[in-house]
Amino acid sequence: MTPRIVVLAGGVGGSKFVLGAREALRRRGIAASTDHLTVVVNTGDDLWLSGVRLQPDVDSITYALAGVNDTARGWGRQDDSERVNAELQAWGVGWPWFTLGDLDLGTHLARTGWLREGATPTGVLERMATRWDLGARLLPMTDAEVDTVVTVDDPDRGPRSMHFQEWWTRHRATLPPLAFDNPGIEAAAPAPGVAEAIAEADAVLIAPSNPVVSIGPILAVPGIRSALRQTSAPVVGVSPIIGGRVVRGMADVCLGAIGVETSAVGVAGLYGSRRDEGVLDAWLVAEEDVDAIETVEAIGLTAHARPLWMTDPTRSADIVEAALAQARV
Amino acid sequence: MTPRIVVLAGGVGGSKFVLGAREALRRRGIAASTDHLTVVVNTGDDLWLSGVRLQPDVDSITYALAGVNDTARGWGRQDDSERVNAELQAWGVGWPWFTLGDLDLGTHLARTGWLREGATPTGVLERMATRWDLGARLLPMTDAEVDTVVTVDDPDRGPRSMHFQEWWTRHRATLPPLAFDNPGIEAAAPAPGVAEAIAEADAVLIAPSNPVVSIGPILAVPGIRSALRQTSAPVVGVSPIIGGRVVRGMADVCLGAIGVETSAVGVAGLYGSRRDEGVLDAWLVAEEDVDAIETVEAIGLTAHARPLWMTDPTRSADIVEAALAQARV
Repeated sequence: MTPRIVVLAGGVGGSKFVLGAREALRRRGIAASTDHLTVVVNTGDDLWLSGVRLQPDVDSITYALAGVNDTARGWGRQDDSERVNAELQAWGVGWPWFTLGDLDLGTHLARTGWLREGATPTGVLERMATRWDLGARLLPMTDAEVDTVVTVDDPDRGPRSMHFQEWWTRHRATLPPLAFDNPGIEAAAPAPGVAEAIAEADAVLIAPSNPVVSIGPILAVPGIRSALRQTSAPVVGVSPIIGGRVVRGMADVCLGAIGVETSAVGVAGLYGSRRDEGVLDAWLVAEEDVDAIETVEAIGLTAHARPLWMTDPTRSADIVEAALAQARV
Repeated sequence: MTPRIVVLAGGVGGSKFVLGAREALRRRGIAASTDHLTVVVNTGDDLWLSGVRLQPDVDSITYALAGVNDTARGWGRQDDSERVNAELQAWGVGWPWFTLGDLDLGTHLARTGWLREGATPTGVLERMATRWDLGARLLPMTDAEVDTVVTVDDPDRGPRSMHFQEWWTRHRATLPPLAFDNPGIEAAAPAPGVAEAIAEADAVLIAPSNPVVSIGPILAVPGIRSALRQTSAPVVGVSPIIGGRVVRGMADVCLGAIGVETSAVGVAGLYGSRRDEGVLDAWLVAEEDVDAIETVEAIGLTAHARPLWMTDPTRSADIVEAALAQARV
C-alpha cells in the first residue's frame, strides 16, 4: 500500500515532524513524492517587512526538507550572513529585533517578486519547490493574507495589540497575552488542493506544533475543520507536550491565554474528538505522559504513549510510524 | 557672497561633477549645505526589480557624496558582496545580468519600505540624507515614476522596446537604438523644490552627464525647461564630449539615435541657447575642443575652453569654478 499522508504543520516542530514523515515513507520504499506526502503549512505568522513578504513557517519547512536549514539556531539558512540586515539597521528600517539573513532574504525577495507579479502563495510554493527535491508537496493553509495579532497586557502601557512576530521575537512572549486573533480569517478559504488532499488522504497527522499559533490558524480557516471532520481518513494528533511541559517555543504561554492547561490532556481537549465537535480520532502522547491515556480515551480518542523527543529524523520517523499505526496505515 | 548653486545631474559623470561642486564651495569657505548646493537628479533610469525600487543615479550621487561609493568599479558601494544576488539567481528571479550588491540592496529595501509606507521619492531622499553628511541637497527631478524605454533595431528580432537598464546593462548599448522615450513624462511635475531652487539660484550648472538619457529626462519634465528659461541665474553647461569623443558610457550611441553629432557643438545645439528656445547661457568646452568655441558662440552662448577630465575632486572643482566664472558667480 502506498499511503497518502497529509500533515498539518507549523514552524520548527513541524519541520522536524515533516522530515520524519518523509523518512517514514522512505522506510516503506516510497521516495516520498507529491502523491504521498502533503504538508499544509501555517501562514498565520507571515508578515510584510519593508515591502518584503516573509513566511517563517513555510521557509522553515522548505529549508528543512531541502537540507539547507540552520539546525544549530533552529531557524533560517545554514552559513547565512547578515550584511543587508546591518544596512537596514543603519537606514533605521525594519524591526531591529528581527534578523534577516542574506540567503534567507533571497527567498523573501524571490517570493515578493512573484507575488507582485500576481502569483498566489500556492503558486509561489510551487515555484519554490522546483529548486530543491523536497520529497513532499507543500501547500499554504490559505492563499489569503491572514495575520496573527496578539493582544497583550502590557504592564507599562496596558492592553494593546501587536503582530505575532513582534510579540514572539521582540518580546520573547514575555508580555502576558490576553488573546490571539487572525483578523479576516473568517473570509479566507483553504488554498487550492488542501480540502481535496484531506478528503483523499489515508491518514491525516497533526504535527506537534504550537496548538494555538501554528495549528490554531490552520484549523480556523473555514473549510479545513469540516474537511477534517468529514474525511474517511483517521486524524491522528501528536502531543506537543512532553512530561507536562512544552518541548520548545512558548506554547505554554499561548495555551494559558486561551484557558487551556499545558498538558497532553489539555491539548487533546482543545482539538477535540470527531465523536463530538472536534477533529481527532487518535492522540499520541509522550511516554512521560502515559497517565494521560485514560483521560484522553474518555473524551473519545484512542491513545498510545511513545517517546516523542524529535532529536533526529530517525526518531521523528519512529513517531510518525507510531501515528500511522494508530491510523492503521 | 554665498552663492546658491543648482546642478542638474545623472549618474557617474554627475557624481564626479557634484563632488567638484561641493569642493568648489568649500574652497570659498562654505561647508556646502542644503542652502548652497541643490542637485536635481535624473530618475529616468529608475526601475522596479522583483518588487524592489532601484534608483541608480540617485544612489550613485548619494554614495559618492557620502564617500562610500566603489570608485574602482564606478558604481555601487565599496566592499560590497553579492550573496543575496546569487540567491536570486538560484531562484531564477530578476535579471541575471543586473547585479545587486548586498549593501546596495540595503538601500533599495529601505527605499522600497518607505515608498510602500507612502513616502514620495522626495521624502525618501530626505530620509536618506539623514544618514550621511552629504553637504548638498538632493532632489529627484520628479516624484512621478517615469521609465526610460529604448526602442532598438534588433538584428535578430526587428524593432522592439525594452527598459533602458536592459539595453544599457544587458546589451551594453550594442543594439542600435532608434528612439528613447519616457512614457507618461508629459504628466509629470517637477519634484517639490526643484522649480523654486532653479528660480532662486545664483547659478545653474548642467553636469557633463549623458545628454540623452541623464539630462534629457530632467529637461523633459514639464516645468523644468521653463524654470531654466525664466530664472535670473545664468545657466552654464559643461560639455560631456572631450576631443570629439564621449568620456564614458555610451552617449555617442544615444546622441546618434536622436540625430545629434557627438561633439561639443552638437550637444550645445541640443540644449540650445536661451536667446532662442534653449536652456543655456554659456557652454564650457574641453581644451581639446577649443575650435568649437566660434560655432558655439554663433548659436548665442558664451563659451570657454578648459581641461574637462574629472580625474579627482580637485580637478572637478576646477571645472565647477570655471563654470561659475562663466556665470559670473
